[in-house]
Amino acid sequence: MHRRTFLSLTPAIAAFAQGRPNLTELYGSAAARLIAAAQADDGGWKKMMYLCDRIGNRLAGSSSLNRAVEWSAAEMKREGLQNVKTPLVKVPHWVRGEESAWMVEPLESKIVMLGLGGSVATPPEGITAEVVVVSTFEELEQLGAEKVRGKIVLYNEAWQGYGRSVAYRAAGASRAAKLGAVAALVRSVTPVSLRSPHTGQMIYTEGVEKIPTAAVTIEDALRMHRLYQQGVKIRVRLKMEAKTLADADSANIIGEIPGREKPEEIVVMGGHIDSWDVGQGAQDDGSGCVACWQAIMLAHQLGLKPRRTLRVCLWTNEENGTRGGQAYREWAGATVKNHVAAVEMDGGAEKPAGFGLSIQGASEEVMVRAMERMQQIGALLKPVGADNMIRGGGGADIGPIMRDGVPGIAHRSSGQRYFEWHHTDADTLDKIDPQEFRQNIAALAVVGYVLADMPEKLTD
Amino acid sequence: MHRRTFLSLTPAIAAFAQGRPNLTELYGSAAARLIAAAQADDGGWKKMMYLCDRIGNRLAGSSSLNRAVEWSAAEMKREGLQNVKTPLVKVPHWVRGEESAWMVEPLESKIVMLGLGGSVATPPEGITAEVVVVSTFEELEQLGAEKVRGKIVLYNEAWQGYGRSVAYRAAGASRAAKLGAVAALVRSVTPVSLRSPHTGQMIYTEGVEKIPTAAVTIEDALRMHRLYQQGVKIRVRLKMEAKTLADADSANIIGEIPGREKPEEIVVMGGHIDSWDVGQGAQDDGSGCVACWQAIMLAHQLGLKPRRTLRVCLWTNEENGTRGGQAYREWAGATVKNHVAAVEMDGGAEKPAGFGLSIQGASEEVMVRAMERMQQIGALLKPVGADNMIRGGGGADIGPIMRDGVPGIAHRSSGQRYFEWHHTDADTLDKIDPQEFRQNIAALAVVGYVLADMPEKLTD
Repeated sequence: MHRRTFLSLTPAIAAFAQGRPNLTELYGSAAARLIAAAQADDGGWKKMMYLCDRIGNRLAGSSSLNRAVEWSAAEMKREGLQNVKTPLVKVPHWVRGEESAWMVEPLESKIVMLGLGGSVATPPEGITAEVVVVSTFEELEQLGAEKVRGKIVLYNEAWQGYGRSVAYRAAGASRAAKLGAVAALVRSVTPVSLRSPHTGQMIYTEGVEKIPTAAVTIEDALRMHRLYQQGVKIRVRLKMEAKTLADADSANIIGEIPGREKPEEIVVMGGHIDSWDVGQGAQDDGSGCVACWQAIMLAHQLGLKPRRTLRVCLWTNEENGTRGGQAYREWAGATVKNHVAAVEMDGGAEKPAGFGLSIQGASEEVMVRAMERMQQIGALLKPVGADNMIRGGGGADIGPIMRDGVPGIAHRSSGQRYFEWHHTDADTLDKIDPQEFRQNIAALAVVGYVLADMPEKLTD
Repeated sequence: MHRRTFLSLTPAIAAFAQGRPNLTELYGSAAARLIAAAQADDGGWKKMMYLCDRIGNRLAGSSSLNRAVEWSAAEMKREGLQNVKTPLVKVPHWVRGEESAWMVEPLESKIVMLGLGGSVATPPEGITAEVVVVSTFEELEQLGAEKVRGKIVLYNEAWQGYGRSVAYRAAGASRAAKLGAVAALVRSVTPVSLRSPHTGQMIYTEGVEKIPTAAVTIEDALRMHRLYQQGVKIRVRLKMEAKTLADADSANIIGEIPGREKPEEIVVMGGHIDSWDVGQGAQDDGSGCVACWQAIMLAHQLGLKPRRTLRVCLWTNEENGTRGGQAYREWAGATVKNHVAAVEMDGGAEKPAGFGLSIQGASEEVMVRAMERMQQIGALLKPVGADNMIRGGGGADIGPIMRDGVPGIAHRSSGQRYFEWHHTDADTLDKIDPQEFRQNIAALAVVGYVLADMPEKLTD
């Protein structure tokens, strides 16, 4: 009632009286404050420096991931977030060990590589075998078992975008093993290389022999392909100590601004706190964690207490198991139905572009209404260029609760260079522009606050 | 006489009759043939594939450099070049050995590095010391011996262009040692990095203690600088086995098309056959060697026998000693005065831009005349975009004969990305665009042929 009285002073009243408040008008002032605070913010960058430079990369099962969990929970408490929790998550514990690849014929020379996550080891003496090079699965099938058996298969598929090219990394080993290959090498999934190997998760097919598998650089893949096309015999020695230990203890990290009117209703935002065991996990996904966390801190610091609970969650083990996202669904239990939205940032902190929305099982009518509201929120994000709201969102960590119908919102970056750094030693803090990082915080702060405070839900 | 009669049919006759033939007109037909041949050429690319993929990188003293010498001399003979020679050159023999850098405080983590050429080793157990970070020599001097003694100095100078930034790589160790530092780390001399260390030569100052020195990546330099600026104590363990062995045997590789009228007069063109011990030495300087060599081969294949001798020389040991260029001067002896021009390509084979000329000791009048002729040759290179002729040229390998007054001509590349690859594991064949490579061959073929055939010399 008080609020309606207040709103009668604004142009939003007409829409609101009809049950369709214009969010652009309703939250113009709050958005301006949040954006101004984000653009002046240093707290987010300080968190990034600590996470990257003092903790470093954070593979599931590593001591550095444990340190990141402890540090972030302690910081959230220190900064005044409420209900800070670190519910236990059992995570896979894959360790790389020593690894190398060496061309032994026609030329003794180093091959720059990174084992793929989940790969088995070679025998201690390594696997030394002739290499066959294919560009596609179709070429592999054409070669057939006769020409593949006993060989190392190299997939040299040119970059076709991440979604498509990653198939070779994920499935290449088992596809090759089915034809009798003894190991699989995969051209790194990236458009650009300075002899840069990119790791990432691979998946063995049930019932197919597990062969060791590694990413090689574009340069090494092209070199071997040139030799192969000339009919030059190539032999490579691959050594990998990779192994999967017993599941390790990890945790999601959760902190909240409890809702002032409907604390039981929740908007959750976050990224994944784990990373691969290379670089600093800066863009992927330290940036997503800290941007979402700091977005909520800005609301907290400005005293903006939303109608609903605004929760940050730093999910664990997105990279090689997605156990954090699954565990969050289990931990939420019946409260999953109280989640009015879930926002995930896992595409890096380059200049923000906007957000994408998916609601599983929603009618077209609901989607139209929800997108209308998203557009109204988007209009608030024009100052930071994050106003492009599209259909189609989600993410690995919010996927499990989205399957319960929770509206899933993906933060979207301009993504100009993200896949040059992704899963490499070059994913380091210097790849993030502090000003672009602040724009991401601003966009998330506005989206999170408005979703948590708006009179109705997206789906109402 | 015969020639004058022939030329009377062309517009060039007036100029020629006055002793100033217009080279653009005189060589329009020959240039068109050479450019067409270069644009259809596969021989140059095949040489590049062999040199890069079958021989690999070629540091002075290495067996691969020896193989490159043998292969290129044998190929030149097989292809019909005359007077193929491989005069002995004694070269420094620096070997890298195993090496690593590891941050031990505040965070155990890898530092990506490459030892600098010429560096001494650390003790076998390595050097573990606190790091001080400076951006410039001035900052180092301000710190003074009290704060530098016993420390590892890291120079984190932001890229200012190669000519300027390389000073830290070259002189950083001795400047730090003078203040009592125990080792020196230098930010890699490059504008761009994907955690990419760049090696290169360093020079110890006489009378100053030799301390081990290595390049680190931009990422690692920035990380340590961030920590240092926050007052966080950094300790690093540096291990290097680098050593300088007794001088090794190497050779310049020389082949010729003997001149049809003045075989004693020589135009020499080439690049350096050695490289650093990383990557494939593709841009630096396999491309310069092969482009010059193939430029001459095209004239040979077209039956264009120039008035003077057209010589290719693949100089050895440009990278860490420039002994090849010095030995060439000694080997030439009194014939140095017969060199009418020396052309060097050592800036990579990106899109060609043109050529630069210097003539040491030449009067302004001679330079004006020579540049006029260069411009006339440049006009022939418009089809391949290499027509920008400027004052100012030379190169490390032709430097010694330029000091005798031989006109020195530097091939100039557009150089868009050269220093991203230079002296790294990423200097591989894929960084060269085959079509741009052919444009370079075309430009060199025209320049070399015209300089060798033109009625007068550049300096006449």
